[in-house]
Amino acid sequence: MAAPNRPARWPRLSAQPADQATVRRSNLSLVLRHLHDLGPRSRATIAAETGLNKATVSSLVAELLERRLVVEVGAERAGAVGRPALILELDGSGVGALGLEVNVDYLAALATDLAGRILYERRVPYDALAEPPPAALDALAGLAREALATLASSGAVPAGATVAVPGLVDVARGVVTLAPNLGWRGVRVADRLRDALGRPPYPITVDNDANLSALAEYRVGADAGTAHLVYLTGEVGVGGGVIVDGRLLRGAEGFSGEVGHLPVDPRGPECGCGRRGCWETVVGMAALFRLAADPDDQAVNGAGLDPEDRLGEVLRRAASGDRRTLDALDEIGRYLGFGASILVNVFNPRVIVLGGYFARVGGYIAGAATAELRLRAIAPNAGGCRVALSTLGFSAAVRGGAGVAVEAVLADPTLVPRAALGVAPTPSVAEGA
Amino acid sequence: MAAPNRPARWPRLSAQPADQATVRRSNLSLVLRHLHDLGPRSRATIAAETGLNKATVSSLVAELLERRLVVEVGAERAGAVGRPALILELDGSGVGALGLEVNVDYLAALATDLAGRILYERRVPYDALAEPPPAALDALAGLAREALATLASSGAVPAGATVAVPGLVDVARGVVTLAPNLGWRGVRVADRLRDALGRPPYPITVDNDANLSALAEYRVGADAGTAHLVYLTGEVGVGGGVIVDGRLLRGAEGFSGEVGHLPVDPRGPECGCGRRGCWETVVGMAALFRLAADPDDQAVNGAGLDPEDRLGEVLRRAASGDRRTLDALDEIGRYLGFGASILVNVFNPRVIVLGGYFARVGGYIAGAATAELRLRAIAPNAGGCRVALSTLGFSAAVRGGAGVAVEAVLADPTLVPRAALGVAPTPSVAEGA
Repeated sequence: MAAPNRPARWPRLSAQPADQATVRRSNLSLVLRHLHDLGPRSRATIAAETGLNKATVSSLVAELLERRLVVEVGAERAGAVGRPALILELDGSGVGALGLEVNVDYLAALATDLAGRILYERRVPYDALAEPPPAALDALAGLAREALATLASSGAVPAGATVAVPGLVDVARGVVTLAPNLGWRGVRVADRLRDALGRPPYPITVDNDANLSALAEYRVGADAGTAHLVYLTGEVGVGGGVIVDGRLLRGAEGFSGEVGHLPVDPRGPECGCGRRGCWETVVGMAALFRLAADPDDQAVNGAGLDPEDRLGEVLRRAASGDRRTLDALDEIGRYLGFGASILVNVFNPRVIVLGGYFARVGGYIAGAATAELRLRAIAPNAGGCRVALSTLGFSAAVRGGAGVAVEAVLADPTLVPRAALGVAPTPSVAEGA
Repeated sequence: MAAPNRPARWPRLSAQPADQATVRRSNLSLVLRHLHDLGPRSRATIAAETGLNKATVSSLVAELLERRLVVEVGAERAGAVGRPALILELDGSGVGALGLEVNVDYLAALATDLAGRILYERRVPYDALAEPPPAALDALAGLAREALATLASSGAVPAGATVAVPGLVDVARGVVTLAPNLGWRGVRVADRLRDALGRPPYPITVDNDANLSALAEYRVGADAGTAHLVYLTGEVGVGGGVIVDGRLLRGAEGFSGEVGHLPVDPRGPECGCGRRGCWETVVGMAALFRLAADPDDQAVNGAGLDPEDRLGEVLRRAASGDRRTLDALDEIGRYLGFGASILVNVFNPRVIVLGGYFARVGGYIAGAATAELRLRAIAPNAGGCRVALSTLGFSAAVRGGAGVAVEAVLADPTLVPRAALGVAPTPSVAEGA
């Protein structure tokens, strides 16, 4: 025998045991997700497509019917002969999901049902830097109550709410550790909101806005389902959310994806964070306005202008072929590609989705960004990575937030209680949305 | 009701159905991994610890015994009364796993059994740049045959071999796309090696050396089990491997973790890749020798010196307190921390493990690296990330390579055939290792 040596100390990597309850829950999830992803179909079709046997599918569907997560919607004839098969459909209408957002210059709320149908959406201007965090959260709670009233009037019971914030978030405790652009540090967002909403039974969580936007892109964006996806949002700062193997990258303490401060030029402009040449100093909105117009150009750099109006003016000039504006956008594009090449080298994503203002000016920057990316990335052809523009607009983060609650129910349908026998709820008429 | 709108198009995220065969395989894996991770114990203990019922555990163990993956090693008394319980132990001795490596100046092979016991290990000097790829692979096949002979003589049947290469690897096809430091481009490593070894039945795979080293650190290193871990290896170049949520990050095409060319200074030294200021130009071994001694300093920069000898001289001078050497190491440490801060911002790992020459000079660079990392990273206290030194030395990549085959068997014990009834193999005496 070989010289005896100790077996290597391997870490505990064991999965949980697949006991009967776990298998049942997993199969309930499988059937519900199947209907959610692929649309209405019969029990027999579900059995054929999932590999589960027909008796199991019937039993699972019976439970999902009891929990009012699916509904029978009609019949189809399977073939020339035989009984027509009943068609099942996801009944998302009884379950509601809430996405909330505090950002530098607005508050937002969006509510969907389990099927992702948007039942409520509202975005209101808000100067977060001018108000203390409790005031901002109370204002957000006001929006949340409106959204909840709309859910209630359409008969949807909320399954969860998620708050998006542009900053570092301690997800486990629901605390915003540091959000420089809001001026927040150590703010107990989940606790405050839970109190303001009267301590509801469903979970209230907090997450980084770019993380939630990345989830939304992965689930409902133009590149939905792309397992390796980087989302970048251009605002005052630059945020990033990364999907790896179909899962949101969070890191050891939830601080991953902090791409705004990638050091792209040690001799570059000073950043709000105190460092020099951070990526957001050369691709953030302020860089565009600085490059595109002189400081005394009132239409772009006038005091007190709304960022939306400034961006609108830049886009008008670009559309009219103004050389300086086009050069400025080209430079933003090249720096965007330069920083993106770092992310491509470390993550090798299939697509980089540009959100926020990047998407608004996308037509003017995507070409330069892609060229610079291909030049700088080590893998040939940037490892097959494309640059794409988000189609979700300002809704990305709140869509992602609502998606968190939807995902929780799809992963474990037993979170939704069985209906009491014989007490079917009366559908009511919603006033909202 | 709210205005009807289409259900969101969600991507197909469905898990595979948990049918009986899948559940069985998953539970066989659970029991085998349990014994592998936690050591010898009785069926009753396994049942209590995994949550599986006793009858199921007995049936699973019977199958693992048939496949000779576990063995009964004795008895213990469960309590004051009752029959003594038989103790089971992982019987790794019948399964072998092979890790191979081609690097710039050496070839290496290592073989373990399923329990991770090292049965064979050899590293030989080799000038990969001086020989064409087929010659290097034939030389590697020679080492592999030695390792296989040792496995055979100890009665272990190989379950797989993995080749580590410092470069971009197309893992699915077993092709080295680009390995600048070897001068390789488009080399069909797996095919060549499979032919050279007579087309064996077990899988031969190829992977990036830093990726495999990261796997080894995750499994048998000092920080084993740390789910968010970045491994960095300092050689001529700098390589990286990243563990995210306990899994190796590969990216869309297997090109992730290319950290050597992070652009840390756009006005910095020219890199072999044609770009400027890549991280490896300021922290690679060449940077250390350039900083630590004048070009005409024969003991460090003499023509034709072995890199090991040059490094040994630097370490001697550092130990003697030589100011210039210590300053050079300090600068390497600071640049290491600077680049590491980028990785901390995007990945938020719990630990950065330094391998290769970084580990050799670790005592002189870790302090400066940690200080710079904390200064540069956005998250407070670098998001809880430590800098640690690898304890695996040059074995890291081949340990990781062998681990790939071990992992495959632990994940699916049915890969190992059942023993023919009544034909128990005769244990033989190994000559090797």
